[in-house]
Amino acid sequence: MHRTVDYVQGKVLLIDQTRLPHELVILELETPEEVADAIKTMKVRGAPAIGVAAALGIALAARSAPARDLQSASAEAEDPEEILRRVERAAHVLRNTRPTAVNLFWGIERMLKAARECARKKHDAAKIKEVLEQTARAMVEEDEQVCRKIGEHGAKLMPDYGHVLTHCNAGALACVAYGTALGVIRAAVEAGKRVHVYADETRPRLQGMKLTAFELVQDGIPVTVITDNMAGSLMRAGRIDCVVVGADRIAANGDVANKIGTYSVAVLAHHHGIPFYVAAPTSTIDFSLASGDEIPIEERPHDEVTHIDGKRICPVGADVINPSFDVTPASLVTAIITEKGIAYPPYKQSLRA
Amino acid sequence: MHRTVDYVQGKVLLIDQTRLPHELVILELETPEEVADAIKTMKVRGAPAIGVAAALGIALAARSAPARDLQSASAEAEDPEEILRRVERAAHVLRNTRPTAVNLFWGIERMLKAARECARKKHDAAKIKEVLEQTARAMVEEDEQVCRKIGEHGAKLMPDYGHVLTHCNAGALACVAYGTALGVIRAAVEAGKRVHVYADETRPRLQGMKLTAFELVQDGIPVTVITDNMAGSLMRAGRIDCVVVGADRIAANGDVANKIGTYSVAVLAHHHGIPFYVAAPTSTIDFSLASGDEIPIEERPHDEVTHIDGKRICPVGADVINPSFDVTPASLVTAIITEKGIAYPPYKQSLRA
Repeated sequence: MHRTVDYVQGKVLLIDQTRLPHELVILELETPEEVADAIKTMKVRGAPAIGVAAALGIALAARSAPARDLQSASAEAEDPEEILRRVERAAHVLRNTRPTAVNLFWGIERMLKAARECARKKHDAAKIKEVLEQTARAMVEEDEQVCRKIGEHGAKLMPDYGHVLTHCNAGALACVAYGTALGVIRAAVEAGKRVHVYADETRPRLQGMKLTAFELVQDGIPVTVITDNMAGSLMRAGRIDCVVVGADRIAANGDVANKIGTYSVAVLAHHHGIPFYVAAPTSTIDFSLASGDEIPIEERPHDEVTHIDGKRICPVGADVINPSFDVTPASLVTAIITEKGIAYPPYKQSLRA
Repeated sequence: MHRTVDYVQGKVLLIDQTRLPHELVILELETPEEVADAIKTMKVRGAPAIGVAAALGIALAARSAPARDLQSASAEAEDPEEILRRVERAAHVLRNTRPTAVNLFWGIERMLKAARECARKKHDAAKIKEVLEQTARAMVEEDEQVCRKIGEHGAKLMPDYGHVLTHCNAGALACVAYGTALGVIRAAVEAGKRVHVYADETRPRLQGMKLTAFELVQDGIPVTVITDNMAGSLMRAGRIDCVVVGADRIAANGDVANKIGTYSVAVLAHHHGIPFYVAAPTSTIDFSLASGDEIPIEERPHDEVTHIDGKRICPVGADVINPSFDVTPASLVTAIITEKGIAYPPYKQSLRA
């Protein structure tokens, strides 16, 4: 499959995830503002993917002179400080797209650090652009490798023959490729395990139905889509062997922010004695937060709930809420699978290690 | 509001619930086959409502001679045995519409019992028709009174000022009027309690969003619609004081079959120490079943999951399941509110009493 986020010939290429599963449309973005808009409107989503997309957005900011100068200005002759100002402005714009996934800020910070290092070394304009482009490109490559390593570690936790529940989409479409939670499932299948996936459809935006099912069908991995409220009775019937989900931010104590509904799945898994795994790169861990209570939870537009595919379903006069994420306390998390290995409780120690 | 199910001038009137909340359409049905079709396609749904609708369908069967004879045959001159045969045939057709809600079978049995009593007493055709019409009409009236009594009993369990979660629609639209779970909420509001309702949208058919929110908006009771996967995090945040739902069938031990997702809500309530109440008429109790394991669970058409309002959302190639109900074990049910009072565990004794 096409990479979810890529950088080709000075453009950021993104699969437009709002068009899936019906159409596979690749967007070509040329400015950080276009990238910011794609993140905000969830044309690209998933914590690792938006981290990489934001980094690429900053590479674009470094590359592109303002439109009016595009033909006239010689890139090499540009003022390095002007580039750095563009980079800082782009970082500001990109930072204000979505609040919960920490990978976004991590991706931006990594680019800013590289830019500031260039300034410290007094690189010229061409060199700054080169360094930032290379840094962002490296993040694209790394993300895929990190997912494969998460997969390798996590595969051994999967049943040899069984049923795995996942929520939302923590797949190739949430990363550059391969996926975190779905990376674990892919690696298990590659290792010869026979895994059948139950995919929570994941209202309101239905990423489980639209994206996870799409990906798994493409890969020939058997998948059954369920409405979010079916998971409990499947667990009670003994039809789910484990749960694996992604994460948008993990606090130092192992509390996990992830797509709304993850917490309910974790409580249900706990009630039924079913392992509940979180698969995420270490870039998703925010050591600056002692617990999940400090993670900002994005409230998204209400029409995501009241309307489905553009059509109003909800009666006028009824209120709605739309928190996009919830926090699962570490006590309900059996293990956290990262590219560096598997962390078990107590997470305060194991995540640091 | 218009009664959900009514009998006026020899016709069964139903609110077409598949058109809500956008259009309030009243269907006028003249044959038991039309009633059976309305039940099967969920134009009328909700355990008490389909019990009454089926009974009215049988009254229609008694009333109407086959179409070809409608003009020629004198009703009074009809063969009583022919009427009883029509009634038995209608019972058969109506019985095969939906398997889970026991009220359907209860409504049909009550009509059959009346018909057989007529036969035993050797009533003539006119008398049989009269008795069956009166029996069905009485069930319409009773249903509303039963709901008001459920409301009276249940209201005292509601918080004076607080937030109540409900799942699916156990409202006026699930009964003749007033509702079971929503009857409890209505009675609490009428008693001066200030109750705000969280309504699970209830995928796949969205009865919570389309019907419960619609009803409560009409009545001016504040309601916030949430996706099914939001309830857990609201409970964790202390924003839900109790849960009240309806039931489609209650086994002798207090196990409750209700709309898919009810079990998950019950587990979540249990985990958070929140009372979980079931409101249902005694006609929903099936003493012939020792436990909920014996309740047949309807699997409904898959396009209810894959399509929303006629539009395909799910990628081709992904499997889906669509169990319409689940079973909540009695151990998770704080109390069962009926028209005869409130039953507490152990239900094996309290329900009989």
